Amino acid sequence: MKIFRTLYFSLLLFTIADTCCAQQLTWTVVEPGIWKAVAGNPDGLDLLKTAGAVPYHAGLAEMGTTEFPLPQDEIKATIIDGKTYLRFPLDTQEQLYGFGLNFQTIHQRGKIITLHVDNYAGRDGGHTHCPTPFYVSTKGYGVFINSARYIKVYAGTAVRVDSKTPPEIKDRNLDKDWKPNPYSDAVEMLVPASGAEIYVFGGPTMMNVVQRYNLLNGGGCLPPRWGLGFTQRMQRLADAASVAAEAQAFEDKGYPLDFIGLEPGWQSKSYPCTFEWDKTRFPQPKAFVQDMLKKNIRINLWTNPYVSPQAPVYNNILPYIATHTVWNGAVVDLTLPKARDLFFGALDKNKIDIGVGGYKIDEVDGGDAYLWPDVAIFPSGNSAEELRQTYGLMMQRYVTELYHSRNQRTYGLVRASNGGGASLPYVIYNDYYNHQDFITALINSGFAGVLWTPEVRSSKTAEEWLRRFQSNIFSPMAMINAWASGTKPWSYPEVAEQIKQLANLRMQMMPYWYSEFAKYHFKGIPPFRAMNLEPGFQSMPAEKPVEKEKINLEENPYESVVLKEIKDQYMAGENILVAPMFTGETRRTVILPRGKWYDFYTGKFAGDGQVITVIPGLDKIPVYVKDGGIIPMMPSMLHAPQINQQVDIEVRYYGEMPGYYKLYDDDGETFNYESGAYSFREIKVTKANGKIIGSISNAVAGKPNTVGKVTFKMMTN
Amino acid sequence: MKIFRTLYFSLLLFTIADTCCAQQLTWTVVEPGIWKAVAGNPDGLDLLKTAGAVPYHAGLAEMGTTEFPLPQDEIKATIIDGKTYLRFPLDTQEQLYGFGLNFQTIHQRGKIITLHVDNYAGRDGGHTHCPTPFYVSTKGYGVFINSARYIKVYAGTAVRVDSKTPPEIKDRNLDKDWKPNPYSDAVEMLVPASGAEIYVFGGPTMMNVVQRYNLLNGGGCLPPRWGLGFTQRMQRLADAASVAAEAQAFEDKGYPLDFIGLEPGWQSKSYPCTFEWDKTRFPQPKAFVQDMLKKNIRINLWTNPYVSPQAPVYNNILPYIATHTVWNGAVVDLTLPKARDLFFGALDKNKIDIGVGGYKIDEVDGGDAYLWPDVAIFPSGNSAEELRQTYGLMMQRYVTELYHSRNQRTYGLVRASNGGGASLPYVIYNDYYNHQDFITALINSGFAGVLWTPEVRSSKTAEEWLRRFQSNIFSPMAMINAWASGTKPWSYPEVAEQIKQLANLRMQMMPYWYSEFAKYHFKGIPPFRAMNLEPGFQSMPAEKPVEKEKINLEENPYESVVLKEIKDQYMAGENILVAPMFTGETRRTVILPRGKWYDFYTGKFAGDGQVITVIPGLDKIPVYVKDGGIIPMMPSMLHAPQINQQVDIEVRYYGEMPGYYKLYDDDGETFNYESGAYSFREIKVTKANGKIIGSISNAVAGKPNTVGKVTFKMMTN
Repeated sequence: MKIFRTLYFSLLLFTIADTCCAQQLTWTVVEPGIWKAVAGNPDGLDLLKTAGAVPYHAGLAEMGTTEFPLPQDEIKATIIDGKTYLRFPLDTQEQLYGFGLNFQTIHQRGKIITLHVDNYAGRDGGHTHCPTPFYVSTKGYGVFINSARYIKVYAGTAVRVDSKTPPEIKDRNLDKDWKPNPYSDAVEMLVPASGAEIYVFGGPTMMNVVQRYNLLNGGGCLPPRWGLGFTQRMQRLADAASVAAEAQAFEDKGYPLDFIGLEPGWQSKSYPCTFEWDKTRFPQPKAFVQDMLKKNIRINLWTNPYVSPQAPVYNNILPYIATHTVWNGAVVDLTLPKARDLFFGALDKNKIDIGVGGYKIDEVDGGDAYLWPDVAIFPSGNSAEELRQTYGLMMQRYVTELYHSRNQRTYGLVRASNGGGASLPYVIYNDYYNHQDFITALINSGFAGVLWTPEVRSSKTAEEWLRRFQSNIFSPMAMINAWASGTKPWSYPEVAEQIKQLANLRMQMMPYWYSEFAKYHFKGIPPFRAMNLEPGFQSMPAEKPVEKEKINLEENPYESVVLKEIKDQYMAGENILVAPMFTGETRRTVILPRGKWYDFYTGKFAGDGQVITVIPGLDKIPVYVKDGGIIPMMPSMLHAPQINQQVDIEVRYYGEMPGYYKLYDDDGETFNYESGAYSFREIKVTKANGKIIGSISNAVAGKPNTVGKVTFKMMTN
Repeated sequence: MKIFRTLYFSLLLFTIADTCCAQQLTWTVVEPGIWKAVAGNPDGLDLLKTAGAVPYHAGLAEMGTTEFPLPQDEIKATIIDGKTYLRFPLDTQEQLYGFGLNFQTIHQRGKIITLHVDNYAGRDGGHTHCPTPFYVSTKGYGVFINSARYIKVYAGTAVRVDSKTPPEIKDRNLDKDWKPNPYSDAVEMLVPASGAEIYVFGGPTMMNVVQRYNLLNGGGCLPPRWGLGFTQRMQRLADAASVAAEAQAFEDKGYPLDFIGLEPGWQSKSYPCTFEWDKTRFPQPKAFVQDMLKKNIRINLWTNPYVSPQAPVYNNILPYIATHTVWNGAVVDLTLPKARDLFFGALDKNKIDIGVGGYKIDEVDGGDAYLWPDVAIFPSGNSAEELRQTYGLMMQRYVTELYHSRNQRTYGLVRASNGGGASLPYVIYNDYYNHQDFITALINSGFAGVLWTPEVRSSKTAEEWLRRFQSNIFSPMAMINAWASGTKPWSYPEVAEQIKQLANLRMQMMPYWYSEFAKYHFKGIPPFRAMNLEPGFQSMPAEKPVEKEKINLEENPYESVVLKEIKDQYMAGENILVAPMFTGETRRTVILPRGKWYDFYTGKFAGDGQVITVIPGLDKIPVYVKDGGIIPMMPSMLHAPQINQQVDIEVRYYGEMPGYYKLYDDDGETFNYESGAYSFREIKVTKANGKIIGSISNAVAGKPNTVGKVTFKMMTN
């Protein structure tokens, strides 16, 4: 029967697919370990081009090459009726990660996903702020579809008649092991366009795959040092005086502060926006921004991109807008250069050019009830769908270019991104507020080439405030977003002191965070990421017992699929494992990868490749450092170091194994690192006779040197 | 500013839309009061053709014609990049109904909907068992898009720059009446195909619009009389002996029963299916079916359409199947005639041809995790999307044709339908089990050209059992679906007697139900429908106070949009208003339309155009009859009348006004009514001096006459 089936299907595919539209895919090496094939006629507007992604060749070259990681003849592309049908093989024991910024799931095998830039509405399934068409397999390869379309993905769910490994057929009437979802041996996708570029990434590890993806994007973003400090967003109608007072309060109370975010009220009108300072609340914008800069505090400006008819730019920009409005504001066709000149000119003038440090780009995600509809027509002829998938990317890119042209780094917030945007210095946020899901998003951000902040807004209790804050400082942006509530770090007096300590810890860890972001940029290693990317984690013996009795490879050929999803602990940089506590919890389990792990605070041995239970108390978030782990720290400061400012470094060293760390250094604010004005200083620590022997390589001549006095601290006794 | 905008947009539309792809729509009268226009090049496979819809000309002619109900120049169609953009005007005070079988909402203005055949998953939004692309406006017109595509609908949400009535622009910073969803003056749709047929229906009433839509479909279905009795579905592995025993138990206990449903276990294997009787459970199918028929009980067979490799038909059907399987079963391309011959041959042989009365067609709806993926390829070249939108329609149509060729009516169940299918004798059901939402679906079914059953399966309490049963008997199919639980009407002894009375009431009301279905067929009036279709309901003064203080036409130009949605009471036929009680409720409010209404059970005056509160007790479901309302009833019988069997009629008359009713009559089982073998007998009742004077017109010579002795009962004293 099976031979008959196969025979028949060869015929069917020949008659329907092969003759009309099956694509012969030719794989070209675009970078070492990265291949590209073109199916059909891809859209002119794609993700990489729109993001302005320029591969970071040096980083990719350093990684070296690999073999093509999949059987090429099992990758299929077919064009039918203006749509591209893609298929990639899937082995029995593969698990898949990625497909964008999901909030509730890490494992993606078995999911059906529509990649669609959208406000996250409480259910995974592709409608999210960043639906990157990229996935990574536990087999150590990755796939990226460079298309700005609503791609429908069947991640190991669709079963074909001609499958080489068809599922066994059971009778639901009487077979007790009948299952509703038969095994599928493929990832299939429908790209609603007459072609698409396909990228395949080699490993051998999943981390290598992610690195290559990020480096193809240009490498991850490198924020200025001040971006990694602490930020506070003002209540929406704050005026210049209240901002100054707020900054003073931080100073007086001894809470660190690097940049302040102004919410809609800085504009004369919002939703739609004028992009003009409100004259009553901010009568002298330049003086205000400059005064704040003198206090070492940058200003970050909220905006959405929808142009009010009362915006000065409105009349000029009219020829470049869509047929439909958003909140009554014109939607600018950012794919048109002239439109961009006008629009980003408005964001530059009297804002960036007077010293504003960055933007928070709101409302570029959806949902449908707010954004332009799919029936909107844009003057460029690009579709509403393509604009939706890329608007966040374009907003990030062109604001960043304004800063780049001033040789000045920025670090901002955005509500939508997509594939190709890893190098854009923005952190995604949203309106959702589930602490657990925020952590899951943080984990998934590492597979999606984006950053995500589990921002703190307000809380029902001091406990919740503290718990949220604890994970917030172990994230890409340590921030209170008080636009609605007006909360401040000390708003919950019972925990105000603990909050201050956490904020100080964030500042002390800046050398570590900055170095880890440099590795994001130069090596493509995401600073915040899933445990699954950590060596020693995948084959966790501790993970299996959960399902062990059920696992039998004869009966269940895709064992890894049933492994427990770990979505409540994550890696923060090279050496740190963070296991957040959530409100109401007093204890939790933590899965430690193989190798010895040590308590971050005490340096005590915590475990080795095992599941531990911790009762950390309210004041502590469980954090662990790997054996030989080095955390370079600086003194607690109220503001990030200024450009080229030297600060002392305390090298904290954990465990027994020899420690090695690359401490990144540059001026901290400019793009001079792009032309080589940076260094990685080598820190080495060994232990001999219970004593620590530490060294740091010399500063490189002609490169910025911000490293002051270096001391070493043995954390594990 | 506005002139500039309009000017500019004329230019934009000229350059982008008009030159390349704006469509000049030409409206053709296809039936009196129904117009069609063709935009672009519609797909070969559309809903009406696939459903085999043949307009019922006589019924349409009888309705007469109307003016074209919309400004034609405000209906726009544009084809861009293989997609059809449609726009229809919307006035400030219109409310919209329809867009398929929604479970939680009646009012559709302000919704964004993707019409997609799917398993209902707890959220409205177009993913439903029947996503009919048809809507009705309170202005008395309707629109139908005859396309088997996933149509995206913006039902008064998208706002255009060139709107003739643009929303006022507010400043969110300071205007307190800023709203997140500005007013939209259009319904817009994106049909992902290079063309579509558009139908517009005139009124003047919403009911007229619905009638015209149903008559264009061929008129609503007319079930056999036995279809309107009572049906019980067996537990899934029941065998012939247990079915016989079950039938005997109904007989012995005095519960009516007309047909018994066999669930998957009648087949030798299921999921995927063999379409063959299981030899152990049903060793002699023909004798079994015939024996049951002798007891006046029909057999209805569950099936899904996915072909097991062990089905006898499998090898022959292989050339006609899709690339992908569903539950390991082959998916037959039902758009191919040869495939249909084979597939429906298997459903006919040893099933219909031995007396099986009908089918329950399962699993043709989705969800995505179960159905074929959008990347499946069908040998006809029709897309997976089109097959998904029409599979339920085709299953219904071609099974019905098997019965039609035997001049034998059927009445079955199906999990998916779509526009065009009103004449197909199937009732939609699903796995969801929320009683309130079941009622909302029943209400919406009347706008979607389908029938829906709030089937009863099992219940946590006797109260719930009774409450569910009460609304079940006022629905298109009175049924217990015991496939999983094995429940029987008497399963909850505390309420077994009440259940029996309800089942008997269902049988007694058969002349009413049958006449109301005849009106569905001949006049297009849905037997179960929203209050909004009832004259005197729309401008309900009682509905307004809920929001009255907020309503100000100056500030809120679309008043009707904010009227309360009524989704827990409905009209059952011409004269009856049903207001179901839900578990835990002891009282409820009922909104009575203008005119006098009377208690169904007692005939007592209940109210006139007002909101009443009722405390009906556990045994009663609140039901009201309109003034002059006539309910023809028959004696309680354990089985529906046989073909041409005469039964006595008791005419129940309510209220004060002269009563007039058209009692439908035909043989009850064949399609002879299609060639005129039917009559509507006129029943007239007046009251004079407190006495009732009733009459019924004579039987028409040469037509079937099943009316025995007629008596009249004055319900209101």
